[in-house]
Formats: sequence, C-alpha cells, structure tokens
Amino acid sequence: MKKTLLTTLLVQCAFVAFAQQEPVDLDMVHRIKQEGLKNSKVMETAFYLTDVSGSRLSGSTGLQRANEWSKSKLSEWGLKNAHLEEWGTFGRGWEFQKSYVAMTAPYYQHLIATPKAWTPGTNGELKGQAMLIKVEKEEDLAQYKGKLKGKIILTPPTREAITSFEPDAKRHTEEDLKKLAANPDAENNQRNNRNMTDWRAMMQLRTKVNEFVMAEGAAAILSTRGGTHGTHFTTNGAPYAADAKPVLPEMEMGLEDYGRLVRLLEAGQKVELEMETETRFLTDDLKGYNVIAEIPGTDKKLKDEVVMLGGHIDSWHASTGATDNAAGVAVMMEAVRILKALNIQPKRTIRIALWGGEEQGLHGSRGYAKQHFGDPATMALKKEHEKLSAYYNLDNGTGKIRGIYLQGNDMVRPIFEEWFKPFHDLDANTITIRNTGGTDHLAFDALGLPGFQFIQDEIEYDTRTHHTNQDNYERLQPEDLKQASVIVASIVYHTAMRDKKMPRKPLPKPRPTT
Amino acid sequence: MKKTLLTTLLVQCAFVAFAQQEPVDLDMVHRIKQEGLKNSKVMETAFYLTDVSGSRLSGSTGLQRANEWSKSKLSEWGLKNAHLEEWGTFGRGWEFQKSYVAMTAPYYQHLIATPKAWTPGTNGELKGQAMLIKVEKEEDLAQYKGKLKGKIILTPPTREAITSFEPDAKRHTEEDLKKLAANPDAENNQRNNRNMTDWRAMMQLRTKVNEFVMAEGAAAILSTRGGTHGTHFTTNGAPYAADAKPVLPEMEMGLEDYGRLVRLLEAGQKVELEMETETRFLTDDLKGYNVIAEIPGTDKKLKDEVVMLGGHIDSWHASTGATDNAAGVAVMMEAVRILKALNIQPKRTIRIALWGGEEQGLHGSRGYAKQHFGDPATMALKKEHEKLSAYYNLDNGTGKIRGIYLQGNDMVRPIFEEWFKPFHDLDANTITIRNTGGTDHLAFDALGLPGFQFIQDEIEYDTRTHHTNQDNYERLQPEDLKQASVIVASIVYHTAMRDKKMPRKPLPKPRPTT
Repeated sequence: MKKTLLTTLLVQCAFVAFAQQEPVDLDMVHRIKQEGLKNSKVMETAFYLTDVSGSRLSGSTGLQRANEWSKSKLSEWGLKNAHLEEWGTFGRGWEFQKSYVAMTAPYYQHLIATPKAWTPGTNGELKGQAMLIKVEKEEDLAQYKGKLKGKIILTPPTREAITSFEPDAKRHTEEDLKKLAANPDAENNQRNNRNMTDWRAMMQLRTKVNEFVMAEGAAAILSTRGGTHGTHFTTNGAPYAADAKPVLPEMEMGLEDYGRLVRLLEAGQKVELEMETETRFLTDDLKGYNVIAEIPGTDKKLKDEVVMLGGHIDSWHASTGATDNAAGVAVMMEAVRILKALNIQPKRTIRIALWGGEEQGLHGSRGYAKQHFGDPATMALKKEHEKLSAYYNLDNGTGKIRGIYLQGNDMVRPIFEEWFKPFHDLDANTITIRNTGGTDHLAFDALGLPGFQFIQDEIEYDTRTHHTNQDNYERLQPEDLKQASVIVASIVYHTAMRDKKMPRKPLPKPRPTT
Repeated sequence: MKKTLLTTLLVQCAFVAFAQQEPVDLDMVHRIKQEGLKNSKVMETAFYLTDVSGSRLSGSTGLQRANEWSKSKLSEWGLKNAHLEEWGTFGRGWEFQKSYVAMTAPYYQHLIATPKAWTPGTNGELKGQAMLIKVEKEEDLAQYKGKLKGKIILTPPTREAITSFEPDAKRHTEEDLKKLAANPDAENNQRNNRNMTDWRAMMQLRTKVNEFVMAEGAAAILSTRGGTHGTHFTTNGAPYAADAKPVLPEMEMGLEDYGRLVRLLEAGQKVELEMETETRFLTDDLKGYNVIAEIPGTDKKLKDEVVMLGGHIDSWHASTGATDNAAGVAVMMEAVRILKALNIQPKRTIRIALWGGEEQGLHGSRGYAKQHFGDPATMALKKEHEKLSAYYNLDNGTGKIRGIYLQGNDMVRPIFEEWFKPFHDLDANTITIRNTGGTDHLAFDALGLPGFQFIQDEIEYDTRTHHTNQDNYERLQPEDLKQASVIVASIVYHTAMRDKKMPRKPLPKPRPTT
C-alpha cells in the first residue's frame, strides 16, 4: 500500500514537472504595450526605409542608404556593435535612372512599365515597331528568322486581366486560422512542386527566346508578369553575376497596357513604340552586407548566448518595397527600440539582423548562418551554433501578427502558447505546427536551429504589393505594424530571459545540394 | 336594377381598358436574345472604339477616328442616313503626345501621371525643384511671393490613400435594388448640393493658386484628384474655349506617387523632378459633332415618328474610356445591329445618336435637342418635339442592366413592367420612379420628352474606371454588355412598334438659367 502511495506521488510530481507552466512577465508585457502602442516610432522608421531610401535592390545605392541609415539609427537608440557585416560575394549592383515607354502609333498612349533588374538601358531614345512573336516551343522560333531587326518584341500574355469581385485586401478569418492550425497539407506542396516544374520550363524557354531575338538584332523586349489597374509585378531580367551574358533592354508592364499592344498587333495594326531607359551597373563592390546590432546580455552565465530577430532589408526595384520588406525591418527595429526605451537588462544578448540579398535567394541570412553557425551541406558546425537560442523573422507584409509557425518543432508549442496569451486580445492566438518557407528563417532551420516566422494577415500582399511597382509607403497599415512590434518585443524578451535556450529539433542530415 | 347593372358593366369595361396589358412580342424577344447572346459583336465594337480609336476627348483626333469608324460601321450594318451632325461650337481640341515625369533626387523614381486636358506641354525636358505650398485661403499665397521661380508646385493632398477591405468591383444586391425602387430620397440631393458648394469654392481657390504660381514664374504644377495602386483620376486643367487664358503645364497623379513627394518635402528633403510633356491644341475645326444613323420606319402613319437610343462617344484622355462610355456606345450600336440582323420592319423610325462633348456638359445631346426639339430656356418647341416617342441612354459603365429609372414618369411604369418581364431571368427587374442625372437623357427630360437611363451594376465604375487612367478594354465585362444589348434592342423595338407614343409628363416650365 505504502509503495503504491509513493508511486502515485512520484507520478504526480513528474506530471507537475512536465506540465510546469512557461512563465510570462506580465509587468514587462504591460510596459512593452505602453511603449509600443502609445509611443510608436514604427511608421517614422518605415518612412526612412521607403520614401527616403528609395528602392533597395541588392547592390544598389538605395540599399546602401537604407543600410547606413539603419545602422546609425540602431546606434542612436543605444544598441551596441552596430555594423555592416559582409556575408559574401553577391555580384553587380544595378539601378535605373530613366524609365519611359509609350505607344506612338496608331496614337499616343503612355504606358506604365519598369526596366527589369540587371537589364541594360536603351542608350538614348529608341523608336521601333512592336512585333508579336508566338513561341510555345523552341522550334517555333525558326519562322521569325531574319524578321526581328530593330523590332521591339512582345509575346502573348499568359494571364488574363480578370475583374475580381473579391477585395484586394484581406485578413485571416477565424476559419482560415483554424485550418492553418491543423496538420501540414501534403496537397499544397504537391501543387507547388508541379508549379515549380512548369515555371522552370517556362523560364528556360523564355531564356531561349530572349537569346534568339537578341541574336536576330531585335532592339528591346516588353513583357508582363501580371498586375492590373496600374499595378505591375516585377523581377530581374538577367543574372546579377559579374560575368553574366549580355541581354537586351527589357521592360515589364501590367496586363492592360500589354494587352492593348497585343490586341492591336493581333488585329494587324502597325504599332510604333518609343522607349528610353537608362540603367547602370555598380561594380566597385561586389560584396553583400547585413546590418547587425546588439543589446548585450547581462547575465554572467548566459550573456554569450544569443537571441536573434530580423528580416530582409533589400527589395525589388520598381517601388520602395514597403511591405516587402520595409514593414518587417521597421517592426524588428521598433521591437529593439521598445526594449531599449524600457532599458531592459536581458540575460542573453539580443541581436538584430537586417539581411541583404534575400530576394535573390536568402543570400544574406545563408551567408551569415554559414559564417557563424555551420554549413548545411556538410553539417560541420561552428561554436556559435550551440549559443543561439532562437531566430525570429518577419517577412510577410504589413499585416498584423496572428500567431507563429512552429516549423515542425513540437517542443516549443507550450512555450509559445503561454507567451502569446497576453496578445490574444490583439488577435494573435494561432500556433501552427506547419512549416512556412520563402524567407530567412530557413537559413537557421536548415542547420537545426530554432528559426521562426510569424503568421501575418495578408492585406494586399499577393494582389497589390509583393514584388510590384505599387509596394509603397501608403500600403503600410500603422496599427498592424504597432501590434507586430509589441508582440515581437515581448517574445524576444522572454526568449532572452528564459532559463534555458529554446528546445531544438534533432539536427538535420547534411544536404550537399543546398 | 337595370341601370345599376349597366353602371357596373361600364365600370368593369373602364377597368379592363385601364388595366389592358402592354403587349410583348415574345417571338421577337426570343430572336433578339438568340442574335444578341449567341452572335454578339459587342466586344469587337468595343475594341474598335477603345484600343483602335484611343482616347476620345472632345475635339481630339481620337474622337474623330471613333466618329468616322462608328458612322461607317452603322452604314455597313445597313442603317440609313449615317452622318456626323454638327451640334454647335465646342472650342479647341486637345491631345497629348508625350507624358513623362520622374523624381531624380533624392533618388530616381518614375511616376505615373498624365497631363491635365487643355494644359500646355513643357516645351522639351523640364528639370526643377519640387515645392510644396500650403494654401487654405487666398491670403495664404502672400508668403510664397518671390519664391516660386522655376519651381514645380505641389499642394498637400486632400485625400488619403486608404486601404480598402471592400471589393473594387460590385454588383447591386437585391437589397440595393429594393431601396432603389423606393421613393426618391431628398437627403441625397441635399448632400449633393452641399458637396457642389464645397467643390465650387475649392475650384475657385485652385484657380487663384494656379494664377498666382504662374505669375510668380513657377515652371509647372503637379496635382492629384485621387486614385491608388497606379490608378489615377483625371480631368481638364484649363477651359477648352478658343480664348481661354494660358495656364502652366500640369500633370495629375495617383495618391501614392503624389504622397511620396509631399512626405519628402514635408520632411525637409530636397526633391528634384524631371518632366516632359507635349500637348497640342486643335483649332482647325471648333465645331462639335454627334454620330447619327437610322433604321427607317415602315408604317405609313407612324414612320415620321422616332424612337432614339444613344450614349456619349467622347471620353477623358488618360486611357481609352472603355466604361465611360465606349461600353454604352458599343451596347447601343449592338442593339441596332441586332435589329438590322433580324431585318425588323419597325413602324416608327429608330435613330441612334452617339453624342460628343458629354464630359464637358452634355453639349452634344443638348445641342441636338435644341436644334431638333426646342429650347428649355424658353420652352419654344419645334415640330419634331411632337414626333419623338422616347430616348434611351446608356452611360453608367460596363455593368449589366438591372432595370430602368422612370424619371418621375408614373405613366410609363406599367409599360416597362411588361417589357422587362422576359428579362427578369437576366437579372433586370427593377423599375424605379427615381430620377438619375449626369448624362444625356437629361437633354430630353428638360424638354418634357421621355428620356430614360438604365439602372446598371456598378462593377469598378467609381473605384477604378470612371475618369481614370485605367478605363481600359480589360475593364469591360463581355457577358454584361451582351445582356444590356438584348434588353435595349427589345425595349427600342417595342417602343417602335407600340400603337401610341410613350406617355409624357406635363411640359416643364422654361428655365432661363439652363
């Protein structure tokens, strides 16, 4: 009987230990909310990152301006060791200094367009006849041999400008979030893989077409990746490598301006264009940089351990990259500003990282992770690997935080469940075991380090802002950014003060192809 | 008893006569639907009016092209007496042949903008510093004396670029239509009157400001009337009268591009712009024209009577005026095409009118009405006034027809109720006693002639297309335009075949101020 009682007690104690609640410092949460919601500087920070710096393409002077400004601002707020840290070799910088295209016949119509990144300019004003070529496979090119000299080339658009009866701007519904909190859906991934295969085939054909029309002496290319009502999506038109092959001048447009040209050509109308673009390649410094700064840890035993937060500061070139990703950078900077304003004394060091080169392949964060933590190709790890508690990333637009992706890490679930409780009334209450991809936390996750990205409301991310010419300061939602700032500040604070580092998943296997 | 019976019978007969149902020719309705829904040419017509003709500002070569094309097309379809009919003196035509503006400092950013109609060009490339002036009343101008030479002037925007969580495109709900079918709401009109007063005061101040900055030697003006995500609204920047006072070059932009410049200036940044616009005034022919064509009546007694249908063919200048009002013109042309394709033999003459000068004050329809029907200022009427049965207008965008405004004419209600019945299953079933304004049926209504405008779904009219740079072919809804075409064809046909002309309201009093 006695033995049974003892066993029962032991089991109960073990259970209590297992279920011990993750502590939350509600005094600090309260102070963070007061500072972050009532004395916010997040929109001022966003203004300097967007309007004042301009677009921030990797290697551009706009990115340099934003890097320098952020570094200075972080120092001014009292962070230590603010510096630009080289993450490796990027390639040529590029920027444009003139962008103009118009139809001049059958009548004058100015067109909304932007040079594709890393394409050359037109070297003064270019006038030429528009020509539509229809190529579904490489062999279709032969029919155009000898016919393209001096022409400005278009291909039929692959998308239609559909009138949507849905709002451009959306928030997650409770139902959306419930689905998101369910298990990962294999179906989605299959679809994405199929899309990637199609996309790669399309890109290969496009490269063939572009090489052909250049060899045939065409003058320039116009293209579209979608976008309506004056919005157009954008990307690069050539590699940024220092030894990239030359390409033709190319501009991207929205579906309507492009569609008008294509319809006129298909109807046999003679379409004349005038175009003037000026672009320049920046080759003085081929390196890439991240902006790094710290709030040093104060606990004798734990100050060498690190909690990181960040987001990429580079953007595409057609506008000022407000939601992608000045928003994330402004929130992360605001989070450390709040913590400094409250004069916190964190046990662990808090380190902010504003990544470069994200848009071309997470270069900044991957370069940093390789230098500091290890190589995912070999899983040869560095000393610092042991010292990192967690990395928090923000890069899904201007929408407020609705919760967090656990990246398959079941062990952190009860921790985040507690830490999010004071923010349930700010609509942040979804913890999902799912992975999310596409941004810089992957550089950490690839090394078995706890790297997390938050769930955010989408707002106009997919419809209007992500990689478009309309990713402007106006698209930022001030109240959302304030909310995100206080949540990040609190989570980073609690990670820095926690007795133990955040629990980790088992180390992944080396992935030589990464 | 006998007398009572007789009285009862008489009362019953009178009641029967009163309630006699308006006949509907369902065979013809069926044939119209077959031709209009299965063999539609409405999008082809719209293509020629928009993409091929270009923008159609009053007096422009774009409008000339559209006028000539429409006249030829109507002849080709077998309409008689197709001609351009002068409605009076308009003033100078205007069009632009270059439109470019960009910020060059603090960094390069191309801007989406359009010269305001009837403003001069920059006479080559203009480079200048942007300057923000804040003027709430005329006296505020004094502080800027001597400071504006060579500057490009902006004033703070009066609207914010709000992110909407509502769809840009909408259809009327059953609830909307139920409200619309209720009595006229006086409140709305009061609000409109107040808005008009504010608007007039604002316009007067703007004229003062523009005169001042011109006298001070400013180089150009940038302004905004709203629009977001690459869409901007547009209008004229000077009168079109042949003797109008000279003004500065002026371009209109959307809220974000404009907002960026204003925020940078307010933050004390030096903002440099480069701008090149070329515009030309067309003074060879100051007259204005309508396009007129007929399907002649065949009934000996009724062929001198006329049923008219139409819409304005002119547009604003920044795009191709697809929903305002190529849509209405394409539908009205399609309606007569359908009737010709069916080889109908109408009792009354059917006459289509494509009005010019609507955007500057219903000039085309008012000029026509004055020449043919009478002068609303004196109510001196012409012979033809007696001969017109009704005029049907379409000018509220690309949305399908949901019913008709009776313009306060109770007598036509039972007629339209019957004529709309075969179209209830195409969502057209709302008859409202309300007036609607703003377009060419008013020229008829002002003379006591039955002039009607249809109720249409709004789609993106107020948000994206009405007087914007994005009123493009893509914004047209093919199925909606087909639906509208068959309804108009049927209503025009029944008006032409009816035993009597459409009932009229009592003649209005002379309105000397009109």
